[in-house]
Amino acid sequence: MKVSVYATHNSVQEKEIKGKVVIVVDVLRATSSILTALSNDCKEIIPMVEIEEAMNIANNYERDTFLLGGERNTQKIEGFHLSNSPSEYSREVVEGRTIMITTTNGTRAIRKAVDAKLILMAAFMNVEAITDYILTLDEDEDIIFICAGTDGKFTLEDILAAGAVLERLEAKGAHIQLDDLALVSKCMYEQHKDNLHGVLKSTYHYSRLVEAGLKADIDDCLKMDTAPIVPVCKDGVIRKMENF
Amino acid sequence: MKVSVYATHNSVQEKEIKGKVVIVVDVLRATSSILTALSNDCKEIIPMVEIEEAMNIANNYERDTFLLGGERNTQKIEGFHLSNSPSEYSREVVEGRTIMITTTNGTRAIRKAVDAKLILMAAFMNVEAITDYILTLDEDEDIIFICAGTDGKFTLEDILAAGAVLERLEAKGAHIQLDDLALVSKCMYEQHKDNLHGVLKSTYHYSRLVEAGLKADIDDCLKMDTAPIVPVCKDGVIRKMENF
Repeated sequence: MKVSVYATHNSVQEKEIKGKVVIVVDVLRATSSILTALSNDCKEIIPMVEIEEAMNIANNYERDTFLLGGERNTQKIEGFHLSNSPSEYSREVVEGRTIMITTTNGTRAIRKAVDAKLILMAAFMNVEAITDYILTLDEDEDIIFICAGTDGKFTLEDILAAGAVLERLEAKGAHIQLDDLALVSKCMYEQHKDNLHGVLKSTYHYSRLVEAGLKADIDDCLKMDTAPIVPVCKDGVIRKMENF
Repeated sequence: MKVSVYATHNSVQEKEIKGKVVIVVDVLRATSSILTALSNDCKEIIPMVEIEEAMNIANNYERDTFLLGGERNTQKIEGFHLSNSPSEYSREVVEGRTIMITTTNGTRAIRKAVDAKLILMAAFMNVEAITDYILTLDEDEDIIFICAGTDGKFTLEDILAAGAVLERLEAKGAHIQLDDLALVSKCMYEQHKDNLHGVLKSTYHYSRLVEAGLKADIDDCLKMDTAPIVPVCKDGVIRKMENF
């Protein structure tokens, strides 16, 4: 099994994705919010690149059956029900509902993966679940991690989460061939797994969220295995993988 | 002093470079060959993106005053004098001559830096020299490393060389603020500095050069401080920085 990691969705070419298993990672905070919402049994999540697109789709839904969630510049979008904080996607709020979500980096990364054979989502919250799912795949299946990055730039937290999955895969005996950035991801995770906050505290996205008063979100997003599910995006809709 | 690292020239936007000090890194092998040629007192080096461009410029030079060097697909270009192996750029061959060089990744990265205030070049061969030069700059000067990458992809050896410079800067007391990839570069170098061949042996570019029978080039390129000079590119021509 060959594993490649891309640091941003801009760095991926569509031809590299075609027919592959793609795992989208946006630890701070899109895939962490998606994981929280799905593990709290929302009905489904529709990722959108543009705010207007989300609002237009929402017009087709009856009141109380849907929620609009997401952020621009780390803040809740005007007229939306929820921001991009995982804690807002509680069972009381999301159960049974459809969520339209649009974020600056994460939903763009998901859209970029459209030609993949299978689009999954990962963050620290589901390292064990995504690892166990990967172990069910054929050995000749290639895996591509697309990290969301932040505003088109390399972002460490996503690289560390990809590294956590790779470390867990090796610990469970998987034979994986890593590309250069996958190797870096695994090394960085191994070096810093006991102090993720320590290595991340000077980084761009982490400090920006702290400045915005969102440290509690970071705490939630760096906890391991709190949402033990596998989100899968099919025909533009994200649901929990059944029977897994 | 803020330091940013870009993994490939494709990931840099021109506006991010304007007015900054840019350090181009292509360990395997363009900047290592350039360092070798300059430390063996070639007259100057003219980096070119296209083969035809190099040949046309060469037509303006008298025979025996210039050399054509470079590679495509790791191999010497037909009609050229030299390939991209640092060992070919010996004093006997290059002294006093102008070299037109074109490589797949390195010369493109140099071209990308055209709007910088100052364009320098680094590899393992000049870690100490480039570090000492950076220490002469004002503290509010920002530094950008543009790694060449390999065929548009993240390549570990360039990241490690940038990390070596950052480690040396810190060891010499510089106060540097690292972006996410600069932090990764420093951590990866610190973790692997005693065994660079070990961490690199499974990587893409390293293995490709080994397969092409070029392991001796890699050995040359991973040696530290064998070419203690600072190459600077001005008006499209690379020379050794004088009085340094």
